[in-house]
Amino acid sequence: MYDFSAEPGNNELTVNEGEIITITNPDVGGGWLEGRNSKGERGLVPTDYVEILPSDGKDQFACGNSVADQAFFDSLSASTAQANASAANSSNQVSSGSDPWSAWNASKPANWESSDGWGAKPEGAAAQRSAANNWDSAFGHPQAYQGPATGDDDDWDEDWDEPKSSPYFKDPESAEAGGAQRGNSRASSSSMKLPLNKFPGFAKPGMEQYLLAKQLAKPKEKIPIIVGDYGPMWVYPSSTFDCVVADPRKGSKMYGLKSYIEYQLTPTNTNRSVNHRYKHFDWLYERLLVKFGSAIPIPSLPDKQVTGRFEEEFIKMRMERLQAWMTRMCRHPVISESEVFQQFLNFRDEKEWKTGKRKAEKDELVGVMIFSTMEPEAPDLDLVEIEQKCDAVGKFTKAMDDGVKELLNVGQEHWKRCTGPLPKEYQKIGKALQSLATVFSSSGYQGETDLNDAITEAGKTYEEIASLVAEQPKKDLHFLMECNHEYKGFLGCFPDILGAHKGAIEKVKESDKLVATSKITPQDKQNMVKRVGTMSYALQAEMNHFHSNRIYDYNSVIRLYLEQQAQFYETIAQKLRQALGRFPVM
Amino acid sequence: MYDFSAEPGNNELTVNEGEIITITNPDVGGGWLEGRNSKGERGLVPTDYVEILPSDGKDQFACGNSVADQAFFDSLSASTAQANASAANSSNQVSSGSDPWSAWNASKPANWESSDGWGAKPEGAAAQRSAANNWDSAFGHPQAYQGPATGDDDDWDEDWDEPKSSPYFKDPESAEAGGAQRGNSRASSSSMKLPLNKFPGFAKPGMEQYLLAKQLAKPKEKIPIIVGDYGPMWVYPSSTFDCVVADPRKGSKMYGLKSYIEYQLTPTNTNRSVNHRYKHFDWLYERLLVKFGSAIPIPSLPDKQVTGRFEEEFIKMRMERLQAWMTRMCRHPVISESEVFQQFLNFRDEKEWKTGKRKAEKDELVGVMIFSTMEPEAPDLDLVEIEQKCDAVGKFTKAMDDGVKELLNVGQEHWKRCTGPLPKEYQKIGKALQSLATVFSSSGYQGETDLNDAITEAGKTYEEIASLVAEQPKKDLHFLMECNHEYKGFLGCFPDILGAHKGAIEKVKESDKLVATSKITPQDKQNMVKRVGTMSYALQAEMNHFHSNRIYDYNSVIRLYLEQQAQFYETIAQKLRQALGRFPVM
Repeated sequence: MYDFSAEPGNNELTVNEGEIITITNPDVGGGWLEGRNSKGERGLVPTDYVEILPSDGKDQFACGNSVADQAFFDSLSASTAQANASAANSSNQVSSGSDPWSAWNASKPANWESSDGWGAKPEGAAAQRSAANNWDSAFGHPQAYQGPATGDDDDWDEDWDEPKSSPYFKDPESAEAGGAQRGNSRASSSSMKLPLNKFPGFAKPGMEQYLLAKQLAKPKEKIPIIVGDYGPMWVYPSSTFDCVVADPRKGSKMYGLKSYIEYQLTPTNTNRSVNHRYKHFDWLYERLLVKFGSAIPIPSLPDKQVTGRFEEEFIKMRMERLQAWMTRMCRHPVISESEVFQQFLNFRDEKEWKTGKRKAEKDELVGVMIFSTMEPEAPDLDLVEIEQKCDAVGKFTKAMDDGVKELLNVGQEHWKRCTGPLPKEYQKIGKALQSLATVFSSSGYQGETDLNDAITEAGKTYEEIASLVAEQPKKDLHFLMECNHEYKGFLGCFPDILGAHKGAIEKVKESDKLVATSKITPQDKQNMVKRVGTMSYALQAEMNHFHSNRIYDYNSVIRLYLEQQAQFYETIAQKLRQALGRFPVM
Repeated sequence: MYDFSAEPGNNELTVNEGEIITITNPDVGGGWLEGRNSKGERGLVPTDYVEILPSDGKDQFACGNSVADQAFFDSLSASTAQANASAANSSNQVSSGSDPWSAWNASKPANWESSDGWGAKPEGAAAQRSAANNWDSAFGHPQAYQGPATGDDDDWDEDWDEPKSSPYFKDPESAEAGGAQRGNSRASSSSMKLPLNKFPGFAKPGMEQYLLAKQLAKPKEKIPIIVGDYGPMWVYPSSTFDCVVADPRKGSKMYGLKSYIEYQLTPTNTNRSVNHRYKHFDWLYERLLVKFGSAIPIPSLPDKQVTGRFEEEFIKMRMERLQAWMTRMCRHPVISESEVFQQFLNFRDEKEWKTGKRKAEKDELVGVMIFSTMEPEAPDLDLVEIEQKCDAVGKFTKAMDDGVKELLNVGQEHWKRCTGPLPKEYQKIGKALQSLATVFSSSGYQGETDLNDAITEAGKTYEEIASLVAEQPKKDLHFLMECNHEYKGFLGCFPDILGAHKGAIEKVKESDKLVATSKITPQDKQNMVKRVGTMSYALQAEMNHFHSNRIYDYNSVIRLYLEQQAQFYETIAQKLRQALGRFPVM
């Protein structure tokens, strides 16, 4: 069905699209089967790279696409590789490294476009579009969003892994800028660059298609926007659900050659569990990003990590973050109700999962086309108002991004101190007091046993305090950091979202010229304004969702922090009073 | 009366001993008079460098010593300068710098002697002794313990000042080893080297004189030693007193050219105040060291400081330390009852002070001769027991010195953190929270005012916590540090004290040879053992005094520390709970 390149020495078999192989063992486990190709070579092939040929009913599999398709894919992957390369170059040229906000600070909207690559070469992008005219066929191919050297569908984890970036809590010494790094690694560079690099023509061409199409297809899926007390809002489902991520289990495949961690996901509404590996989460993330990323910030998944992938601590932390991510998704009225998300949680068997997966990958309502599914029950907006709203969101999200980063930096620094030098110091105080008590006990002077015992106890108390201090950040600062990391992830999506909006607004502004030269009709322009209005309503609805979540989240997390901090200091005071009580009164 | 070298440009007049000058103004203030010498030169001379000639009753003053005396002093000061130079050399050669304990770690008693200069050249020292046979005449001269370039009796402060050494709390960045430095600067190098450098022949010759004298003079002053429940002890006076050091005032002399700080001292038993400058404290310290230093640890005075001498903070700190020093002295049964100490606190006028000062400087019962005033009411000790006691004290004081230094180092480090990076970090947390609240307030979303106000308050709370953290060490750690500094000072005296004891024990050990060669009689040897026994009783009495004070002091200061720390953490917890209470419950 798809090209599959065997990894040398891995007992794998390279297959090409359209090639027919003979199955020798239909299931060796872990999603692999053993097959033999026309040359008689035998080896392992991922089961979802092949399809049972229904035509003759024999033990034969074939990749489902024609040779003509193959040529198309080849040309596509060449242009994709090219896009990747040039995107890598341009991202190196961005002034403040990977800061997606760097463009936002510049006043000229042109900068926006050039720095993030949107509309910088509208003609080139349009040209690319013709090659990638079918998003589905391009994006439906798993290799389209794998790295250039990949091929083993079951080893996304390994293949995709970026150089190890330690989260702030892993290595307090080296992770100086860990907070910033982490947030950027996926949230900004990845979540922002990905649609640009990997889906050439995602922005502008989709935008023109959306703004100028004579009639938008009326899709079955409708995303309603209503106007509530706080302005435009998504419609919240009558019953909500969460999804419990639990029970991380090490699985293996390839006779134990490859191992991975599988998580159990249990939606609270069905209470029926499904299992997913990290790579499946990543698949879902990519689908959501492709589909909703122009309208809704899709926070990045927790970092992947090559080394120490199976360390207990790491697994626990990743699960916690996957849980937080899933909860976010479940909380979102649009995402939680989407077919791809529902399918991810509710498939009944492997086959249903794969069918759903392929369907999702073929979804055409992606990119800015998502706005075509939205029908705000609200009056049309004029362009000035639209632009103001967009600018206000930009200003706020940029400012909040700064605020969140400040808090993360401070928190990072504080974490390091609380887990490093500070407890070491308390331990030293404790040891020094105990040493002194030992010396005192050697004085030979009578009647100082009580004092020396008390000093020893005071010393032990300071050692206990050292442990309390070192452990405390896990009980409070951790949650404050996690919350801010999540928001940093959200906020990192806004340059893209706002870029789409700005791009649309610019298109409308340019449209007078097009009307004047009769390239479009006045009615076309009317439609464009209305559609940009729809985008604006969507942005406002999303912002209202964002704000209400933000208020809830920050209230909760700061309360938790203060409560835990207060308890912490109370505990220390109590321990000190206990130690004090042991001293003889003279 | 004494040589006085005028400082150039200071309107001073150089006078030599025996020179007769004519007074032109008997009191220009600040202890100076204006005079004219035989050459007709006029200038200022310190009043206590001259003496009114009673012989003819005219307005003439003369230095009271004969020309023959002058020759003696010249020869003496030459040998003193020499001794200073060689002592400076040898102190550079001591292995671990200024650590007075370095010798203690070596097992051979010979090292003791060579490293601290005691008895290294017994013959040379004995030779020097013949020149300095009259301690009184040598030590009574103020120049005998001033630096080589000095001459202005009224400017001890300036002339004696060592290079500025910051106490631990002055400059947390540069004072890394401030604790160690401070304790050593006077306590060890000064208090140990001074009697050796400046009083050549202080140790050995005095020791032989004490151990071998046919009959000890029965002085009026007796220092009793009794045996109590805890062993040998000093006799404590029935009524004790303290001395309040207060009201530091800037004074000036020389028409405002020179200024100094004067402190008011009020003994609690008389409630009558006297004023003293730092240099007077230093004079008292030197006298006590000369007189009691072989038997009793005389803690060094707080450091002198050239720059910023009149800064409020410095004056306050120095006064606090002078107070602590005076309280220590008042608490000591031998020192507090001594004539020199009493006279320091109870002189009625300038004249009485000067008379007492001169008398003290002429005191012959100094160095090891102090033991001749002690009469233990206890059975004689044998040499083995004496040596064991001495070793035990050495072991304990060395171990405690280590313990105290450890605590000082840790405390120093903790002080730096608590006054530097830690509050800065809390401040940053506070600022970050307030920034976030400001950003949140700009959201335009309704109904989040309560939350944002609460976050702002939480931020301010963290700024308050920053101040609390930064101020706290002054309330608790300070006292723990001061107490340990004081004990470091005490402990730094023990190498000298123990050196005297070890030296005496060695002498007794050598005495069999002397008896065999009939250089001394068996009775002489008996006397020697008895006198070393007296020294041992004195050491035990002093150690018992030391221990009882130590127990009291450490109990008090650790209790204070724990109490203050507990209160500190309780205050923080309370503030956090207050901040928490402002958050809306959702």
